[in-house]
Amino acid sequence: MSLILTFLGKGGTGRTTVAIAAAKKLALQGKKVLLATQDTSPAFGLLLGATLSSEPQELSPNLYGVQFQTSLLLERSWEDVKNLEAQYLRMPLIKEVYGQELGVLPGMDSALALNEIREYDKSGKYDAIVYDGIGDQNTLRMLGMPEILSWYLRRFQTIFSNSDLGKTLLPFLQPIASAVLNISLTPENLSQSNKATNLLEEGKKAIADPHRVAVYLVTTGDPSSIATAKYFWGSAQQVGLTVGGVILNQAILPDTVVAEIAENLEQVYEKFDRESAITNTVTSEFAPLKISNIPNRVGEDWQPLIDALPDFRQAAMVPKPMEIDLAAKQVKLFLPGFDKKHVKLTQHGPEVTVEAGDQRHNIELPPQLSGQSVRGAKFQNSYLILSF
Amino acid sequence: MSLILTFLGKGGTGRTTVAIAAAKKLALQGKKVLLATQDTSPAFGLLLGATLSSEPQELSPNLYGVQFQTSLLLERSWEDVKNLEAQYLRMPLIKEVYGQELGVLPGMDSALALNEIREYDKSGKYDAIVYDGIGDQNTLRMLGMPEILSWYLRRFQTIFSNSDLGKTLLPFLQPIASAVLNISLTPENLSQSNKATNLLEEGKKAIADPHRVAVYLVTTGDPSSIATAKYFWGSAQQVGLTVGGVILNQAILPDTVVAEIAENLEQVYEKFDRESAITNTVTSEFAPLKISNIPNRVGEDWQPLIDALPDFRQAAMVPKPMEIDLAAKQVKLFLPGFDKKHVKLTQHGPEVTVEAGDQRHNIELPPQLSGQSVRGAKFQNSYLILSF
Repeated sequence: MSLILTFLGKGGTGRTTVAIAAAKKLALQGKKVLLATQDTSPAFGLLLGATLSSEPQELSPNLYGVQFQTSLLLERSWEDVKNLEAQYLRMPLIKEVYGQELGVLPGMDSALALNEIREYDKSGKYDAIVYDGIGDQNTLRMLGMPEILSWYLRRFQTIFSNSDLGKTLLPFLQPIASAVLNISLTPENLSQSNKATNLLEEGKKAIADPHRVAVYLVTTGDPSSIATAKYFWGSAQQVGLTVGGVILNQAILPDTVVAEIAENLEQVYEKFDRESAITNTVTSEFAPLKISNIPNRVGEDWQPLIDALPDFRQAAMVPKPMEIDLAAKQVKLFLPGFDKKHVKLTQHGPEVTVEAGDQRHNIELPPQLSGQSVRGAKFQNSYLILSF
Repeated sequence: MSLILTFLGKGGTGRTTVAIAAAKKLALQGKKVLLATQDTSPAFGLLLGATLSSEPQELSPNLYGVQFQTSLLLERSWEDVKNLEAQYLRMPLIKEVYGQELGVLPGMDSALALNEIREYDKSGKYDAIVYDGIGDQNTLRMLGMPEILSWYLRRFQTIFSNSDLGKTLLPFLQPIASAVLNISLTPENLSQSNKATNLLEEGKKAIADPHRVAVYLVTTGDPSSIATAKYFWGSAQQVGLTVGGVILNQAILPDTVVAEIAENLEQVYEKFDRESAITNTVTSEFAPLKISNIPNRVGEDWQPLIDALPDFRQAAMVPKPMEIDLAAKQVKLFLPGFDKKHVKLTQHGPEVTVEAGDQRHNIELPPQLSGQSVRGAKFQNSYLILSF
């Protein structure tokens, strides 16, 4: 059993920095620590100084890091489900659907991450698991799952056991439940003492036990960070979680302080040649997009900020996500921010699947290209160009 | 039809501030604007200077604000589903389950919010809807739903129409699909031209049309904010979204600048009597929790930060979320950060439901209290005390 530790607080309060420092601290204390992040953007790796993958890797003595990639986790679960289905149903329905095609829907990130945490916990390999989630409402919804799902199970149990429909449904619900929760939903499972209930009860017990799952709040001195942290404090209790303490990050300046020292900052900024250096970097990183520079908002005067915003009606004047050239038999996908090594192309089912940024996009081809194999793919100036 | 506008960027880059300013800007241009937030924490209201509710309210000429509260949206959908069920099934199964009891599971926030946006769009009342989501991965998952769900529908359609199971399942899938998507899933709906497919096709078309849905990136000059914004840029293309431009927020200092001006800041901080004022505020706001003050991290030296963190093994020494006093027939729930007016107590089904922070907690009572009515409830020193 591991100590599972996570941090709640407003975005930008330094939660991720604190999570990394906490993992380092526990590792220095001699604990074997798994630092798990759900952030698939490059920000986590930049902060950590290492690139994580979907398998745990050693970062320093006692410290391991892993990145939960929902599309991969979904693929793995799906293969398990297909095996189960083939085993239990005479006519497997889903064998023609490939895990590599499955797109990620809302909720899957949390459900699959919770299952991963449970499995790493059960593996007995780690004394502590430090989890860095995406958005804190998500972390709360995730950790609330055992309690809420067991309520749904409890409440619908009678309904199910009293209906013929219930029995008919099981073969279908089985794959869904297994994919999402990694549990088997058999008729016995819908009665009191069963695997699904046990699993949820175990989860509830772990979450309610502060020796097993603990949350710390992270805040800056800013009133809105403080208010948000307080809100998460109460919200954590709502799902039975224990908040162990508060981490006050004074490295980040409260808005009020920033406003008061705005004059001083102007001088400081000059020293760093702000306008030229930063704007130039951003302009080149995001070409061909237009960059709008916004100023500091002082007090209640929103006007300078409003004036600096772009004309939102001009949004359409940028490259389109997808262009199809039927004459050349080409499909061009605009994928800025990625390069060749981030993009994976598969063609398992009837459609072409493009995987990037922990998302899957199944391309609906025009009739002229539909069903044809991809003959070539190249990555050029932020475009993925597929030739048929 | 409205222009739907949203902002993607790393937490703490000022996304919400920009969303509010954008709504104000469009309203000043004479557009009728709905500013919709999914943030149920007090941070949004503090920034806006107004408290939003689940019904749109006028904030200033042309500017309306609404807060999506998932538990309420779920309740509303559920009642619709029950009505549908009663209409179509001879033996309604779910009539005994009350909308007010339903807990929120991962994914419901996004699914219900997307449906709300769709309905406000369809209402024709607003020229623009500015949406402020919770966490950006969520916003992308949400806006990716039409495309990904229509893929699932397309892919599983053949499987369904070829199986008897498909037909048996419909009466059950109907309520689920309706609750989540507000669509009816009838046998006809599983064929080509039907309501569900149309709805998803409409959604896909809207999301792919930059005159209808546009996203702007928000970043500071910080390398990790820039990297995250670039990541979201590519990720947005993956779901067919158009990124219209970049908003560079130079009001927030990049980490590198903060590190370099750390010396100057020390002097500035002294002026604001930092240690005493801020720490005292935070200490009193979060009593009885322990406050750990963490310093600025300069460069690659994590040690001062690690040293300042609390001993995470002490997490358990705080009030428990729930205490049961059988002798006094009392249940005490620790709900800091909320007060009486934030907490709603209902007893529709066999259990007591506590609603706070856009979450629902169905209390599993010990056998001695189970089934009894709540005789009294009071809120005292962050505790909700229920007497039976």
